[in-house]
Amino acid sequence: MNKEEFLKDLCIETDSKIILLVMDGLGDLPENGKTALETASTPNLDHLAKSGCCGLTDPVFRGITPGSGPAHLSLFGYEPTKYILGRGILEALGIDVHVEKNDLVARGNFATLKDGLIQDRRAGRISTEENRRLCKKLNQSVQKVDSTKISFFTGKEHRFVVKFTAQGLSDQLSDADPQRDNRPQVYPKPLSSKALETADMVQKVMDTVIQVLKDESQANTLLLRGFSKFPSIPSMEDLFKLKPAAIANYPMYKGLAKLVGMNVLEAGSRLPDLFETLKGFYQEYNFFYVHVKKTDSFGEDGDFPSKIEVIEKTDQFVPDLLDLEPDVLVVTSDHSTPCLLKSHSWHPNPFLIFSESAQVDSTEKFSEKECSRGYLGRFRSVYAMPLMLAHAGKLTKFGA
Amino acid sequence: MNKEEFLKDLCIETDSKIILLVMDGLGDLPENGKTALETASTPNLDHLAKSGCCGLTDPVFRGITPGSGPAHLSLFGYEPTKYILGRGILEALGIDVHVEKNDLVARGNFATLKDGLIQDRRAGRISTEENRRLCKKLNQSVQKVDSTKISFFTGKEHRFVVKFTAQGLSDQLSDADPQRDNRPQVYPKPLSSKALETADMVQKVMDTVIQVLKDESQANTLLLRGFSKFPSIPSMEDLFKLKPAAIANYPMYKGLAKLVGMNVLEAGSRLPDLFETLKGFYQEYNFFYVHVKKTDSFGEDGDFPSKIEVIEKTDQFVPDLLDLEPDVLVVTSDHSTPCLLKSHSWHPNPFLIFSESAQVDSTEKFSEKECSRGYLGRFRSVYAMPLMLAHAGKLTKFGA
Repeated sequence: MNKEEFLKDLCIETDSKIILLVMDGLGDLPENGKTALETASTPNLDHLAKSGCCGLTDPVFRGITPGSGPAHLSLFGYEPTKYILGRGILEALGIDVHVEKNDLVARGNFATLKDGLIQDRRAGRISTEENRRLCKKLNQSVQKVDSTKISFFTGKEHRFVVKFTAQGLSDQLSDADPQRDNRPQVYPKPLSSKALETADMVQKVMDTVIQVLKDESQANTLLLRGFSKFPSIPSMEDLFKLKPAAIANYPMYKGLAKLVGMNVLEAGSRLPDLFETLKGFYQEYNFFYVHVKKTDSFGEDGDFPSKIEVIEKTDQFVPDLLDLEPDVLVVTSDHSTPCLLKSHSWHPNPFLIFSESAQVDSTEKFSEKECSRGYLGRFRSVYAMPLMLAHAGKLTKFGA
Repeated sequence: MNKEEFLKDLCIETDSKIILLVMDGLGDLPENGKTALETASTPNLDHLAKSGCCGLTDPVFRGITPGSGPAHLSLFGYEPTKYILGRGILEALGIDVHVEKNDLVARGNFATLKDGLIQDRRAGRISTEENRRLCKKLNQSVQKVDSTKISFFTGKEHRFVVKFTAQGLSDQLSDADPQRDNRPQVYPKPLSSKALETADMVQKVMDTVIQVLKDESQANTLLLRGFSKFPSIPSMEDLFKLKPAAIANYPMYKGLAKLVGMNVLEAGSRLPDLFETLKGFYQEYNFFYVHVKKTDSFGEDGDFPSKIEVIEKTDQFVPDLLDLEPDVLVVTSDHSTPCLLKSHSWHPNPFLIFSESAQVDSTEKFSEKECSRGYLGRFRSVYAMPLMLAHAGKLTKFGA
């Protein structure tokens, strides 16, 4: 079954408003018997859990640890094992590169070439500042090759993104990366006949870049990986008859939202900015994806007290959300980021839905343990969207 | 989505060790309010449930009663509705017939032919001893037909297995079985053009057998069903980067393990032998399937007290498992065999996972009722493998 098309057939336009509050990496493992969420004082979230309906979600399926891409697509109602996002596009979104239909993007490394071999695939991990100088140089010297426009964007240390713009480019290219040090420079190979010209063009660009960098001591060549185009994903408006807005502080999440056709709002850089933006634009849209990043960041750092603090701060904005009187309010995470593991994990996300038509269960608090007893049970995140749509009165009866 | 291929892409090799303890047919229905597992005294399993994470699994999906084949394939991570095992191969595995790529096997019945009709499809249910005499006679008289090698293996009463060995044999054959008494003898029909020669060969073998048996009073002919070849299943090593070992007392389970590429260890015939073998080979493998049979046998007998006793005996070996310090320990069953039903059933299996990265839930005991409250929820057994792999640190992130 194609879940998206199935929902599309049932979806109708309504005036109802949905808020999806994603606390990135919220799910946790207990330290001293309690998770960050269980330890935090969250009277407002607890009130929602108590008067709403709870459950636990698996981003992909049991055991799978997702990246931000599949984890978010799933929450937005897209089967994450079907809509696969290329590495290049995710890297580009992460550093706020604007990608359009005619663009081809790839992740790049500055590297060191010596005696015909790639001596260091990371060019001694040059500084981000040095990277910036190199990208500036390339953007001045390598603006166009034949009819293809070229742009370079600085990432962290030795990493960058390159964007090729022209009609008819293909992403069916192998990585231009020898994978290990002390092997010769590699060019991308076409993986289908459609990519023959693109492969030639990229090789030409690489040779031009190497020419420009030839006098650099460390970063005198480049590797390119994860060639990808703007993915072809049906929009949330098309599928779910929503007018969606994304409210996020970080580029990656704005980018992901753009891929499914959300309108990305200017949302500042601090937590309160998110809720200010929501309030300011509340009349103009009917679906709001609000993204809190720091729960994940502190999870990745293994910083339990700071994760608790972000949760508590976010909790204080819940009354502002309720003041807007949304028809549906969901609070959940895209994936777990346990402080103990300092990384994304496969553990399920706490999930709560607050709505007039939500069946009130006996959960007393918003926590992993309480959610595991919730009426919604344990389900794949991709079913969050039908649940939100249903509670918003946007799904008509299936069959007669 | 092909779950196995999906997992294969994410799997990496690690040093971590996984033990999967299968108590066959463990799941039960209550008698006097309690199941066998709920009645048994299981302090060690209860400790695991308390310090680990629990759930309930459906071997195939809700309502489906599986045979041992699909129930085990599912636990080993193979979609049981996709990898279908022929009846012939299962019967062969059950009586310890060694099957290889060039073999074709079928289940046989000795039967009674009179006046050109099959008078009794079971030859009066001759004794197993009588069956042994007949198979010996056939193995002496019918060793080869053209270039095909033939072997007969005694089963219970009138049942046997025949193995044909030659290059290019096909299992696309209909059953050589009139299905009801008082119908004429039937030969297998080719179900595809590839099976034309094999059908001719089998008919020739059947005629030779009938000639050899012509003076027998009861067992003077044969029926053949469930023609099957060694199934083509990707190995656990290939899919999951495991070096797996099977530790089981009974041939059926050794055979099933062999089908997915496990190394079958010599594991004696008694319960303690299983755990001795595990200890002895613990350094040589990193995935151990340990199979306890008698919980199922006593379930099939409707012998509630003996089922309890096996559970309690197995419980006593849990400390030995913990002494090995596995990274992941799962205890579950392949399917339920309620004493009240004296047969396999569709009821779910209690499931527990014990691992450092397991989210501790509030289950207090290892039982059907407690597992139904577990954090893992209710899930299809085929997701046991991704869960085990995840907790063993063997699954990399999906997407970026």
